[in-house]
Order: sequence, then C-alpha cells, then structure tokens
Amino acid sequence: MSQPRQARAIRTREKIIRAAAEVFDESGFAGASMNKIVRRAETTMGAMYFHFASKEEVAQTVMAEQASDMAFPAGEDGLQRMLDITLEVARQLRTNVLLRAGVRLAVEQGSFGMSDAAPYQLWSEMLRTQLVAAERRGELLPGVDIEEFAEIVVGAYTGTQLLSSIATGHADVYERVATLWRYMLPAVAAPEVIAGLDLGVADSARKGASLGS
Amino acid sequence: MSQPRQARAIRTREKIIRAAAEVFDESGFAGASMNKIVRRAETTMGAMYFHFASKEEVAQTVMAEQASDMAFPAGEDGLQRMLDITLEVARQLRTNVLLRAGVRLAVEQGSFGMSDAAPYQLWSEMLRTQLVAAERRGELLPGVDIEEFAEIVVGAYTGTQLLSSIATGHADVYERVATLWRYMLPAVAAPEVIAGLDLGVADSARKGASLGS
Repeated sequence: MSQPRQARAIRTREKIIRAAAEVFDESGFAGASMNKIVRRAETTMGAMYFHFASKEEVAQTVMAEQASDMAFPAGEDGLQRMLDITLEVARQLRTNVLLRAGVRLAVEQGSFGMSDAAPYQLWSEMLRTQLVAAERRGELLPGVDIEEFAEIVVGAYTGTQLLSSIATGHADVYERVATLWRYMLPAVAAPEVIAGLDLGVADSARKGASLGS
Repeated sequence: MSQPRQARAIRTREKIIRAAAEVFDESGFAGASMNKIVRRAETTMGAMYFHFASKEEVAQTVMAEQASDMAFPAGEDGLQRMLDITLEVARQLRTNVLLRAGVRLAVEQGSFGMSDAAPYQLWSEMLRTQLVAAERRGELLPGVDIEEFAEIVVGAYTGTQLLSSIATGHADVYERVATLWRYMLPAVAAPEVIAGLDLGVADSARKGASLGS
C-alpha cells in the first residue's frame, strides 16, 4: 500500500474502533451489528471487512485496545502511582467510551462465546511494573508474591467495577476502588507506608504520561 | 388451583429452571431459546408461558435462585464459617450447574439489557451474617465497617471467579478464592486470629446446613 493509502487505512480502522466502542457501549454485543458500526463510523462495509472479519473480531479489538485512549497519571513508579493509575481508570470508566466498552465486553465475552484473557493481562502487567518498583523502594512487606497479588487485584478490581456498574451505572466506581484498596493494602504494605499514600483524587498536574513510562 | 395441580405446577417450574440453567450454562443467554429450554425440560410451551413471560424472566429467576441447590457447610457463624461457605461456593462452581449458570448470567446480564443487583444481595447478606457473628466473637479488628467490607468482598469474589472462568474454565477457582482471602483478611482480623483459620478444603462432615442457619 502507498504511504497515503496506508495512513488513510489506519485512520479508518481507528474510526471503526471508536464507532464500535460507542455502539457496544450503548447496545451491548448482542444489540450491535456490523451495519450499525459502519453507519456510525461513516465508512463502508468494504472498508469494515478490509479490517475486520466479524463482529467478534471488532469486539476483541475493542477489548484489546481499551486503554489506548487513556492518559495515565505521571509520577515515579511504586505504590502511589499504582493507586493513581487504578483510580484514574475508575474515574475514566465514567467518561471514556473506549475504556468502558472494552471493559464491558471483556466481562460479558462469555455471552458471545469468547474466552480471551488478553485484555486482563494488560492490567496485570501494569500492576506488576508498579509493584516491582514498590519492592525496590522498600514499600512492600517482605515476601509479597508480586505475580500472585497483581492477578488477584485485577480480578477484584474487575468485579468491583462490575458491581458499581450494575448498582449505580459506575456513579460510585471511584469510591469503591478506593475502598477496595483500603482492604487490600494491609496485606502487602506496612501501616506507616499506607499512612503515606493518597487515595484521593490524583493531582491533575501529575497526569499526561503513558502506561509504564 | 387444586392441591395436586399446584404441586405439579411447582415441580414443572423447578424442572424448567433446572433445564434453563443447563441451556444457559452451555450456550449463554444469546444461544439459549425458550424452545430449547422447553425441550430440555420435557414440558410444553404452554407450561413455560404459564410460569415465565420471557427468556429474560427465566434468566432472572436462574440468577435469583442460583444458590437454591447448594448445601452450605455447617458450623458456628463467624470468620471460619464465612471462609467455609465462600470456598464451598468456589468448589461448587465447577459442579453445580444452577449456581454456575446463575453466577454467569449475573455477570453477563448487561449483554441482554439487564441491570439487576438482587443476585448479589443474597451473597452480601450471607457475608454480613457471618461478619456480625465474627464481631460478636471478637474476631474482627476494632472499627471494621461490616456493611462496606461485605459489599467489597462480593465484588472482589465475583471478579475472581470470572477471571478463573476465563483463564481456566473455573479449574483454579478454589485456589484463587483462598488467595483472595489471604489478601483481604489482614484488613479485618488480627494476625493471631488469621493464624487460627483454615483456608483448606472444608471438612465434609461439617456440610449439610442451609445458608444463614
């Protein structure tokens, strides 16, 4: 493909993913159709099938790229940044359609016959990065199994946002995630370390870096 | 309705719920149909619509009655019984079709336009009962917010079993729930209390009582 054609194809693919996220967010997987997504993206069925073979493949891409619209809070890697990132994700679940649709599809994927752990691995990697840094900084209790704790947090976080979604349409998701941390941190950090952590709204001046940077 | 007719109607309703659980468990909500459920239950469409107005209503009933097939571990209410019950639920997620289908539908309900918190309330009530007893027995740290902790555990547990389902088809759900508890108990119980708790397989001799009894 020539350079301009390739650039156009990439833009079209992005437009389709964004439109798909909107449609999945409004209608769920069952209520969405390739047709609806094509109309929302203002593109053609030909362009759609050039990029995606099926609605399942579009959904899988929205799941995989759920975080690509997010600006992650900056700061030094460690426990505070781990809290800042997870709280920012909670905040953005209310406003960021790609994130919300990607998370929702990852939770509901069984309903359309999918069983894809990949969307969750992005988040356990992020947590591992922050926990390894926390260990290096002496913020963790001795003997914490970072791999295991990261995996448990991803599951606990996923269910926490799900219950918030069902109970309040994500209105209280930020508070629930902060509460979840209050109950999980004592297993991995000493009281004096926890006392120095901020579970409030992350300072907007610290935003703007990308994941893991 | 006469007594025998009423008894027959109750049996038919139960047969439908069980058949529906099997069909939802195999095919998910989208892949299930009233027809499929009627055939599995070996009943008639007339009997089906006497009891349920729609597939959504059948699904809601399976969610609401997800625990009605379960025998809960007996024992005195408190932290140990809370662990025993939640671990028994994990164990039964592998074998009890009504439980597995009910939990799955509760998680995936957004995909068919439902937003029903009731199936989760059953579990937070169970946890509250055990936590209130634990507090009375002096097993909790001072100042634990029982209501809040119960709600957080239900969310964390829901996500933990979901990730186990996606990653291993529930093969490792028992171990994941035991691990979740190891990371949540330090926030609510003193180390010497936790040391006395058993996160292993519940003694089969202690089974057989019903929820909250």
